[in-house]
Amino acid sequence: MATHMSAALKNAGHNIVQVYSRDMQNAALLAYHVKADAIDDLQHINAETDLFIIAVKDDAIGSIAEQLAQHDKLMVHTSGATDMYALLAFNDKAGVMYPLQTFSKVKEVNFRQVPLCIEGADVTITKQIEQLAQSISNNIYRVNSNQRKTLHLAAVFACNFPNYLYEKARQLLNADGLDFELLRPLILETAEKVQERLPAQVQTGPAVRNDKGTMDNHVEMLADNPHLQEIYMLLSQGIIKMDFTPPAQ
Amino acid sequence: MATHMSAALKNAGHNIVQVYSRDMQNAALLAYHVKADAIDDLQHINAETDLFIIAVKDDAIGSIAEQLAQHDKLMVHTSGATDMYALLAFNDKAGVMYPLQTFSKVKEVNFRQVPLCIEGADVTITKQIEQLAQSISNNIYRVNSNQRKTLHLAAVFACNFPNYLYEKARQLLNADGLDFELLRPLILETAEKVQERLPAQVQTGPAVRNDKGTMDNHVEMLADNPHLQEIYMLLSQGIIKMDFTPPAQ
Repeated sequence: MATHMSAALKNAGHNIVQVYSRDMQNAALLAYHVKADAIDDLQHINAETDLFIIAVKDDAIGSIAEQLAQHDKLMVHTSGATDMYALLAFNDKAGVMYPLQTFSKVKEVNFRQVPLCIEGADVTITKQIEQLAQSISNNIYRVNSNQRKTLHLAAVFACNFPNYLYEKARQLLNADGLDFELLRPLILETAEKVQERLPAQVQTGPAVRNDKGTMDNHVEMLADNPHLQEIYMLLSQGIIKMDFTPPAQ
Repeated sequence: MATHMSAALKNAGHNIVQVYSRDMQNAALLAYHVKADAIDDLQHINAETDLFIIAVKDDAIGSIAEQLAQHDKLMVHTSGATDMYALLAFNDKAGVMYPLQTFSKVKEVNFRQVPLCIEGADVTITKQIEQLAQSISNNIYRVNSNQRKTLHLAAVFACNFPNYLYEKARQLLNADGLDFELLRPLILETAEKVQERLPAQVQTGPAVRNDKGTMDNHVEMLADNPHLQEIYMLLSQGIIKMDFTPPAQ
């Protein structure tokens, strides 16, 4: 995520002063891409900067914020699951800039389309963060800490779990000598369908038809895999019970 | 599905003689689009045709096949979950042409990219079906009845279940005053990521990091929704236990 966001900031004309990581190699690699200095010791921080962006593991945010607080500069973290209070505990000048996207080092992402969820400790800070966010993305949302946690949880359902189910589907095919390639168009179309419609409007499959014969066959085919069988039954029950009246929102 | 496949066949220059449905309105609508005659009684079938395509609910395939068998023409069904034997029981000239895609009447699909899984009762029939399939799609796979059932099951995991999880994510957002729009880029990127990579190579989220703190928080946030909580735990356990070494296939 740090790689993608710093590249977007650099491309938007911002000057990235330093890149810190505990691991000098990581710092150097990222610093090289954005023409910044690399450091692996927060003692060497250059305080002549407008903003610190803390893009580290959730449980390290507090400790980094504590060490940076002495410089009395605006600090933002980029975490979905972490309260703004993790920074506010150490410095009034605090905010959040959470990109709601899944990033991998091997694939480019058009950052202008990434939803950026922002929050600031006060009105001035919020506007400051919003300006920065607008320089790299077209999709800015003001979201408070509780809403951001909900988003982070929802993202697990919308991204991490579907990807896991893709992998389970791949394994089923593989066991029968079939290539994952067969499923790729279906996976893409499923995601594209909900880009302009709501998922409840486009649900398909045996469960939404309450086609018990097919579901019984499927459960039987999974007899050797109790975990997958349980997933099948639990999700199918949810679909069967669901109210698929499109919500009026 | 019948709508999309018949349009693809018509566009490829094939002549569609008749469209049958028990419901005359359905027959007429489809027949109109492909310039065919509509019938709602199999007694009125025009036997001067090369092929009957049986695209009906799984449990109606046998009965339709039985009624068409007297004409002694090639019959194919389009079902993922149904054995070719459902036709063979009535006529030797039988086969399958199963499009592995999710179709909705409101959204166009580029049929040339739809994987078509074909099977024929003998070599000649298989080649005949293959030729027909190639006239409407670039992705033809020869797949036997058992493999096709596996594909159909895998498609539930790759399409129906992810779509259900999108809906659950939407409901979580909705309860907190957030718009589903926020998740759409994430959903699309998740599907695009596995178009050139395998899902195990791009899995993200708290479970694959075994981030217990975040998972505990998420489970707590779902305290009011035992079904969703159970889904969260079951899928997370699967991801934690999973071997994410990319398979050598």
